[in-house]
Amino acid sequence: MNLILLQPHELPSGHHGPVILDDQRARHITQVIRPSVGDRLRVGLVDGAMGLATVTQCIDPQRVELEVTLATLNTPPPAPLPVTLLLALPRPKVLRRVLQTCTAMGIKQIYLINSYRVDKSYWQTPLLSDESVHTQLLAGLEQARDTILPRVHLRSRFKPFVEDELPQLAENKLCLTAHPADTATPCPTAVRQQTLLAIGPEGGFITYEVDKLAQAGFEAITLGPRILKVETAIAALISRLF
Amino acid sequence: MNLILLQPHELPSGHHGPVILDDQRARHITQVIRPSVGDRLRVGLVDGAMGLATVTQCIDPQRVELEVTLATLNTPPPAPLPVTLLLALPRPKVLRRVLQTCTAMGIKQIYLINSYRVDKSYWQTPLLSDESVHTQLLAGLEQARDTILPRVHLRSRFKPFVEDELPQLAENKLCLTAHPADTATPCPTAVRQQTLLAIGPEGGFITYEVDKLAQAGFEAITLGPRILKVETAIAALISRLF
Repeated sequence: MNLILLQPHELPSGHHGPVILDDQRARHITQVIRPSVGDRLRVGLVDGAMGLATVTQCIDPQRVELEVTLATLNTPPPAPLPVTLLLALPRPKVLRRVLQTCTAMGIKQIYLINSYRVDKSYWQTPLLSDESVHTQLLAGLEQARDTILPRVHLRSRFKPFVEDELPQLAENKLCLTAHPADTATPCPTAVRQQTLLAIGPEGGFITYEVDKLAQAGFEAITLGPRILKVETAIAALISRLF
Repeated sequence: MNLILLQPHELPSGHHGPVILDDQRARHITQVIRPSVGDRLRVGLVDGAMGLATVTQCIDPQRVELEVTLATLNTPPPAPLPVTLLLALPRPKVLRRVLQTCTAMGIKQIYLINSYRVDKSYWQTPLLSDESVHTQLLAGLEQARDTILPRVHLRSRFKPFVEDELPQLAENKLCLTAHPADTATPCPTAVRQQTLLAIGPEGGFITYEVDKLAQAGFEAITLGPRILKVETAIAALISRLF
């Protein structure tokens, strides 16, 4: 937690009085950061600015009081990346980490899509609930020191998504499919354009899917012969592209 | 497991007869890959070449027989990256994944070093045993389809390492410290030179350590204002550098 995220409604009305934290943020502050009264902590307003808050009380591990004024929230969050991610829904076991990694890297639009190699059961995981997804996104923002929540869209049918929704989404964007095939072109670098990046499941997109994406204007790109876990691939692709 | 790794001593003497697998590789083959007799699987010889092996028997989940000939092991592993990693020893909880990620990315020399923010207890973890490290390195190779085992060196004292060993290690290398500070220069790309890359612990290297590295010729580089988990940072840095 490199940033304490505050919800706008947690700010005191009229901006007077302390912000009171009594959840896992309070525990993190008292047990990990362990500040003294008067110390300043990095805070950010969800979907807003960042700045420093002064610790006014932190005796009880269940309760921390911070002084936050709108004037001290004077730093904009890092710039979002010009990318929309189309990601084959990962296994529940890795979904949480993947969502955190996407968020930490600065991706703001995430479509979790179906693919032949996405097990149907994955769509049933409680980790896809709004609340669970929200928790992971917050964790990614807290890690990276960002405040802008990504939007996560669930698309559990591949063909309707690609045929009906993708054309509009792809308009005026550079469209890339990460596909470690010999025929793929090397992953470009220093991309400035709005980009739509498709990443397949473990085992990769099947040929039908790569072809459907190609028909929609997607070029296959590769990072080389190494097969990376989806979480590693996301970091490696994003870092190389932008 | 995108590659079945074989130890050289597992090849039949005189290169006649099957290779018999009766460990977790056999279970992976029978339960995940589920081939038929006659199917071919990607195999690689640890520290050697890769190729296709023919499944000659796989009825019992505890026992798979493969036909592997030296003639079919005709593909070299992916090229190693020209990088030596100096990595502040991560928390045990993430150490396994970090070692796998380093290996999957193609790093072949890993120095796990001490740092002020590395808790002393981390050096006591059984995950640093030769056997445990070896297991993670194999997992990284199996993931990435590589065969060349990285070398992992443990250096539990920062100052002696930097003063006594680093000068020779740094000779003729581009030396970089990943350090997300405003004063750091942006991470370079398309590096062809042999590189020594230092990555700090959670919370970063302390100023003393950054200065010691700077005295040894290390330039501070940054990926930008986002603070990444070490595992994500490794993938992002390596992918951008090479």
